[in-house]
Amino acid sequence: MKDVSALKPPPFARIGDSISLVSTPALVLDLDAFDANTQRMAELARRHGVALRPHAKAHKSTAIALRQLELGAVGVCCQKMSEAYPFVAKGVLSIHISNEFVGADKVAMAVELANYVRLSVCVDHPAQVDALGRAATQAGVVITVLPEVDIGQGRCGVKGNDALAALVDRIALYAGLRFGGLQAYHGGIQHLSTWEQRKEAAANAAHATAQYVQFLAARGIQCEVITGGGTGTAEFDVSSGVYTEIQPGSYVFMDGDYGSKDWLGGWKPAHSLYIASTVMSTAKPGLAVCDVGLKGVAVDSGLPVLRPGDHGGHLQYKAANDEHGILQIAAGDTQDYLGSRVYLIPGHCDPTANLYQQYVGYRRDVVECIWEIDARGLSQ
Amino acid sequence: MKDVSALKPPPFARIGDSISLVSTPALVLDLDAFDANTQRMAELARRHGVALRPHAKAHKSTAIALRQLELGAVGVCCQKMSEAYPFVAKGVLSIHISNEFVGADKVAMAVELANYVRLSVCVDHPAQVDALGRAATQAGVVITVLPEVDIGQGRCGVKGNDALAALVDRIALYAGLRFGGLQAYHGGIQHLSTWEQRKEAAANAAHATAQYVQFLAARGIQCEVITGGGTGTAEFDVSSGVYTEIQPGSYVFMDGDYGSKDWLGGWKPAHSLYIASTVMSTAKPGLAVCDVGLKGVAVDSGLPVLRPGDHGGHLQYKAANDEHGILQIAAGDTQDYLGSRVYLIPGHCDPTANLYQQYVGYRRDVVECIWEIDARGLSQ
Repeated sequence: MKDVSALKPPPFARIGDSISLVSTPALVLDLDAFDANTQRMAELARRHGVALRPHAKAHKSTAIALRQLELGAVGVCCQKMSEAYPFVAKGVLSIHISNEFVGADKVAMAVELANYVRLSVCVDHPAQVDALGRAATQAGVVITVLPEVDIGQGRCGVKGNDALAALVDRIALYAGLRFGGLQAYHGGIQHLSTWEQRKEAAANAAHATAQYVQFLAARGIQCEVITGGGTGTAEFDVSSGVYTEIQPGSYVFMDGDYGSKDWLGGWKPAHSLYIASTVMSTAKPGLAVCDVGLKGVAVDSGLPVLRPGDHGGHLQYKAANDEHGILQIAAGDTQDYLGSRVYLIPGHCDPTANLYQQYVGYRRDVVECIWEIDARGLSQ
Repeated sequence: MKDVSALKPPPFARIGDSISLVSTPALVLDLDAFDANTQRMAELARRHGVALRPHAKAHKSTAIALRQLELGAVGVCCQKMSEAYPFVAKGVLSIHISNEFVGADKVAMAVELANYVRLSVCVDHPAQVDALGRAATQAGVVITVLPEVDIGQGRCGVKGNDALAALVDRIALYAGLRFGGLQAYHGGIQHLSTWEQRKEAAANAAHATAQYVQFLAARGIQCEVITGGGTGTAEFDVSSGVYTEIQPGSYVFMDGDYGSKDWLGGWKPAHSLYIASTVMSTAKPGLAVCDVGLKGVAVDSGLPVLRPGDHGGHLQYKAANDEHGILQIAAGDTQDYLGSRVYLIPGHCDPTANLYQQYVGYRRDVVECIWEIDARGLSQ
C-alpha cells in the first residue's frame, strides 16, 4: 500500500514534450516572443543611456529577473517588501521597492534586506521616514530613500515643493537613510489608447518631474536617480532627458489591454504569454466550455481573447465563472470542440501571473523550460 | 556571512499574537463565526436526512475539510482533478469531482485517485465516458459516474431524456465505471437577490431534477445520489425531497455578494472571512491608500467592503489597482489614517481565497491557528 500522505498531482508539464501535452490550465510562454521583447527593451534603454530596472511585480519570477539582468538591467523593482525576498535569495543585488509601506513588520524586512542588497524604497509621509530611519540607524544599515512625487496619478506621492522638501530634510536626519532621488510614476497614462495620447501625457509627466528635480537642484540637492515609466511610455521616457531609469514590467508578456492600444510609430512588444486551456464540455449548442475561469485568468481589465487565427476565429471567450470559461461558437459552425485546445491572451498579465506557480516556456511548440513564479502571493 | 540563498520572508503571523500584529495583506478568519456557520449547515443537513458534501473549491484547505468531516460531512466536492490530491493525501475518503474533464492527463489522475478513495465524477458527453471507461477498466479500478443534467444553468450538463439515457447506457458498457446518480447544480440561482426568488427558483430546479429521476426510474434505473445545491439555496434543497446530498461551499465564509442578498425567513451565515489590510499612504486629501489591490482580492463580483462599524463607517473601498486599494474618506473627516488597519469583506470568496497561501484563524482577537490553503492554484 502506497503512503497516501505523499500523494501529489503529477507534473503538469515536462521539458521536451510538445506544448499540446501540457496539462491545462497552464501559463505558457512563447520564448521567441519573450526573448525579442526583453532584448528590445534592453536595447532601447541602452541606446538612450538610461538604466533599465524592470518591474518584477509583472512576472514575480527570479528566472525571468536573471534573464533581464543578463541583458543589462541594473536590478529590479518590487512592489512589496516580502516580494523582494526570492530575488535577493537568487542573487539580485539591487532592489527598488517602488511603493510606500507602513508597519514594524515591513520596516524589519527592509532592514533585513539592506544587509544583503542595495535597497531603495519610497516614502510620501514623514512618519514613514521616521520609522525606517530609526530602525535602519539602530541596525547600522543604510537604506536609500526616494521620495515619491505625484506627477498626475493622484494616488501616492507628495504634491508640491514644500512637502517634498520636508521629506528630503527629514531623510537627512537619519544616519541610516540616504536620499537617492525621486520616484515619479504615472500608471494611468500607460494605458491611454493612442500613441499620440501617451506621448503627450508622458511629456507632461516628465515636465512635472523635471520641476521637482529643478526645485531640489536650486536647493543644492542632486537626484542621483529619477525612476519611473512603464511599458506604455518607455519609448518616451528614455528620451525625456528627465528619467535616469525606467521600470517597465508588462513588456515581457504584453497583455490584452496593452495589446489593444494603438502603438503607431512606436515599438509594440509581442504577445508572449498565453493561458493554455481545454474545452471540457460542449453540451450546449453554440457554446464550448473551457477549463479557465476566474481562478485561471484575471478579468479586471477585460475578458481574455483567443490567440488570433486559432480555430478560424470561430471561438470567443464571453464569460468567466470560477472554474469555467464560456466560449461562444460562431453561428453556423457545427464542429464539436470537445477536447480542443485554446490559447488565451489574458486581459491583464500582472494579476493573472499571480494565480499560477510556474511558466511553461516553449519554442517551436516544444517545452524548453519551466520557470517558478517564486514571488507569487508574496504581497506583504 | 549568512547564506543568502536561504533567505525567506519572516512568518507573517504567529499563533498567540494579537490579530493586529499580523502582517498585511492577510486572509483572517473569525473562528467563532466560522464555527457557527459550519455547525449550522451540518445541522441543517442532518435534520433533513440529507448528506452534506461541502465544496472544497470555496476554501481549498484540508484543515477546513477535516473540520467539515468531523461535523458529519460525507466527503467533499472538488472542481478540478488536481485540486483533489491534497484532500486525498490528508485522508478524505470520498471525493466528488462536480465538473466535467477531458484529456489523457485528467483521466490518468482520476484513475490514480480511484486507487485511494471513493471517487465520483461528472460527464455530459459520450466521449468523456469512453475515455474514462477504457482507462478505469484497464487499470482495474471502479469510478462512480454521475451524469450532469442541466436544470437551468445553461452551461454544462445534458438537456433532455434521450441525451441522459445515452450516457447512462454508455456508462454500463464499462466494467470500470458505475452509474451513481445525477449531478444537478444551478449556480445562477444561488445569487438571486431575494429569499422568495431563490425559494421559487430552487423549487423549479428541484422539479427539473425530479423529472430526470422519474424518467430513469421508469426505465428501472435508481439514482443512489442526487447531488447539487449551494449556499444560497441549501435551506430549500434539503427539504426538496429530491436531493440526497447538498454541496454548498461559500457558507463557511459568506462573501460580500452573498451577504448583500435578502435572507429574510432563512438562515444567513455570518461573515467570517476578512482581508486584513494596512493604510500605507495618505498623501492625497480625502484618500487613504491601503495595501490590498487586485492581487489581494477578487473584484469580479464587486469591490470589497469594510467590516461594518469600523472607523465609524468613514472609509469606503472605491478602486483596486494591482497592489493598491483606494479608500475614500468621508467628507469632513480630517484624521490621518496612515498605518490604520482595515478589515475587508471580499466580494467573492472563492477566487479571493485562491490568491493566498494561508488562513489566519483568530478568536477574541488572538491568532489561534494558521491553516494552509493547500489546494491553492491546483486548477488542472
